[in-house]
Amino acid sequence: MPATDAAEQPGQPWNRRRLRSTNERLLLDRLRARGPASRAQLARETGLSKPTVSSALAALEEAGLVHEVGTRAPERGRVAVLYAPDPAAGYALGIDIGRGWLRVAVADLDGSVVARADVRNRARTSGTMADLVVSTARQVVADSGAGAHEVAHAVVGTPGVYDEKQRRVRYAMHLPGWGRAGLFDRMREELGVPLEVHNDANLAALGEYTYGVGAGSRLFAYIMIGTGLGMGVVSEGRLFTGAHGGAGEIGFLPWPGRRGPGTLEEAVSGEAVVEAARHFGMTGQLTAKAVFDAAREGQGPAVEAVRLEGERIAHTVAAATAVLDPDLVVLGGGVGHSVDLLLRPVRESLRTLTPLRPKIVPGRLGEDAVLLGAVATALGTARDVVFERRSGS
Amino acid sequence: MPATDAAEQPGQPWNRRRLRSTNERLLLDRLRARGPASRAQLARETGLSKPTVSSALAALEEAGLVHEVGTRAPERGRVAVLYAPDPAAGYALGIDIGRGWLRVAVADLDGSVVARADVRNRARTSGTMADLVVSTARQVVADSGAGAHEVAHAVVGTPGVYDEKQRRVRYAMHLPGWGRAGLFDRMREELGVPLEVHNDANLAALGEYTYGVGAGSRLFAYIMIGTGLGMGVVSEGRLFTGAHGGAGEIGFLPWPGRRGPGTLEEAVSGEAVVEAARHFGMTGQLTAKAVFDAAREGQGPAVEAVRLEGERIAHTVAAATAVLDPDLVVLGGGVGHSVDLLLRPVRESLRTLTPLRPKIVPGRLGEDAVLLGAVATALGTARDVVFERRSGS
Repeated sequence: MPATDAAEQPGQPWNRRRLRSTNERLLLDRLRARGPASRAQLARETGLSKPTVSSALAALEEAGLVHEVGTRAPERGRVAVLYAPDPAAGYALGIDIGRGWLRVAVADLDGSVVARADVRNRARTSGTMADLVVSTARQVVADSGAGAHEVAHAVVGTPGVYDEKQRRVRYAMHLPGWGRAGLFDRMREELGVPLEVHNDANLAALGEYTYGVGAGSRLFAYIMIGTGLGMGVVSEGRLFTGAHGGAGEIGFLPWPGRRGPGTLEEAVSGEAVVEAARHFGMTGQLTAKAVFDAAREGQGPAVEAVRLEGERIAHTVAAATAVLDPDLVVLGGGVGHSVDLLLRPVRESLRTLTPLRPKIVPGRLGEDAVLLGAVATALGTARDVVFERRSGS
Repeated sequence: MPATDAAEQPGQPWNRRRLRSTNERLLLDRLRARGPASRAQLARETGLSKPTVSSALAALEEAGLVHEVGTRAPERGRVAVLYAPDPAAGYALGIDIGRGWLRVAVADLDGSVVARADVRNRARTSGTMADLVVSTARQVVADSGAGAHEVAHAVVGTPGVYDEKQRRVRYAMHLPGWGRAGLFDRMREELGVPLEVHNDANLAALGEYTYGVGAGSRLFAYIMIGTGLGMGVVSEGRLFTGAHGGAGEIGFLPWPGRRGPGTLEEAVSGEAVVEAARHFGMTGQLTAKAVFDAAREGQGPAVEAVRLEGERIAHTVAAATAVLDPDLVVLGGGVGHSVDLLLRPVRESLRTLTPLRPKIVPGRLGEDAVLLGAVATALGTARDVVFERRSGS
């Protein structure tokens, strides 16, 4: 019962140290959330005494966590020094491993991306892919100007579900050999940075929550449509991951396919769009993007294929809505550039499928959603780690 | 920043009063969770000093919240008095409004049901139904021996989703006129008890979590199959209700019906079982129960109808599993008595629908799940209310 003990024995040194650290953290969080402020302003807003604020700020400055960023001269009274968190106190690393692209970014503690690389993913084995991740991440860290030891935390997004116990990814069907055990442990060691692994759709959902259209939503579902089909769910600001991290694996929703029962992922993926376009009469070397481009120009078979894709996505939205009751459904992923074409068929199909009418919008971050979600997640931990390291708490 | 202020100014009376109340609550919760204990034992386990424990226990006894329940005579040392929460310090009321039955129970603060009534629901209008609820609840409270003012909190379970703003239930298709605004406000006033309204499947899920098969689950989905189709989701001990309380409205899952698209509720309800049995050749006055009974005896058309029902439920389970990733799926509701017959067809169908393999079990509470969930939920609030009222905190 630490709280009770502390109150019963207020004079213990343990308690004083803890209290000092709590005050420092309080001020730092306030500065982070609402911008630069003077000592007097901080005292007023936090309810701490001015001497307490002064000594906490001095400690934070000494630790390199806070710096002076200017002054404010009021009409009356003394000029006040303004303080802000020092963004260069540490860095966070975000990585998005997709089938088509590998994206890496380093952000400072303010969350500004200070270096970034987008590399075509041509790796044919999981080993070369891991090598590519490590070399690219090293390059981006070097470009950022951060010392390697200043990167406090890294988060990687990948298709599939990471299994902590087995040290491997499950259900990553589109990346060859990606289910091998120990792959991420190797990256972690070679990079020398604590590294967390998350599902890509989950990170995209967090990306849209932090930087995009999801801000303020109580419960939103991000549907990622691209090579595969995934969903990330953010409930009251926190990722909803289910009992084993597999929530949102909507690629496994049953789907009554033409050739017997299949899963929705087969029906909704980019390949399915191409297949549908062929079925309706398109010819030549086709990609999903080519089909969407043709639909935008009004070509009949392409329009039909997109309509069918919309119908199938509507099934996903209907299932997610009945189970979760979101206040917002975001469509994103590889088809992000073409969501405008899909919205109408999705909404129309939905009307025939269910009486529920969820709000559906395109994502704002496009193909950056996973990467920015990885950065945002890494940043949360990096801020804690840097504070603890530097303040010695 | 109360925590910081309190630690900075440990001598304030406000702080002493709050601390005293915190200690009392701590002891009460400990006694509730782990059974009767002596003063010495409580001091050891909570880290509070013996004088603090003694005065807190005296205050709790004075307030009628705790009473002596016996003594323990150790081999050496003095005989110790054992304390326990007084179950009669207050009561909680649980109500389950179903199409077929109205069930009402009063529990003491230990959670023991001290009075109960199950009444056939023959009401034809929402007005007569509300009257029946009020008269039955009054009777059960009278039977319990509790004074009306001693019932600290009530929880009602109903089909549909209660809309706080509009003061009415949405989506309660099987109860005539049940969507009328103000119906529950009227019950609240006539009973003179604070009354919360919850979806029946949600309460059943909480019932199975608190008293049944759901205990210890990280995330479980309770699928209620009866007149309608519903689902309650409990995530880390808390109900998952979605953005507007509509999570688990799986009756609205799309279902490719024979006569064009419909919803799953139409396909899975008791009526659908009867319809399927007729389709396969059963004749006479049929009810869902009659079909299940015939299937249990091996009658062909009934077996086929149950197999079809299993297939349809498997679709629900598949959708819930892909979206939520539960560690447990519980089947219950009106068909509870026949879940044993359904489990095999559900599991078999599931194998053809999805690679996911959720654990599926029958509920343990049968048709009492909603009522016991209502009692458990009311109890949580009642304990808080009674503590605050009696301790004057």
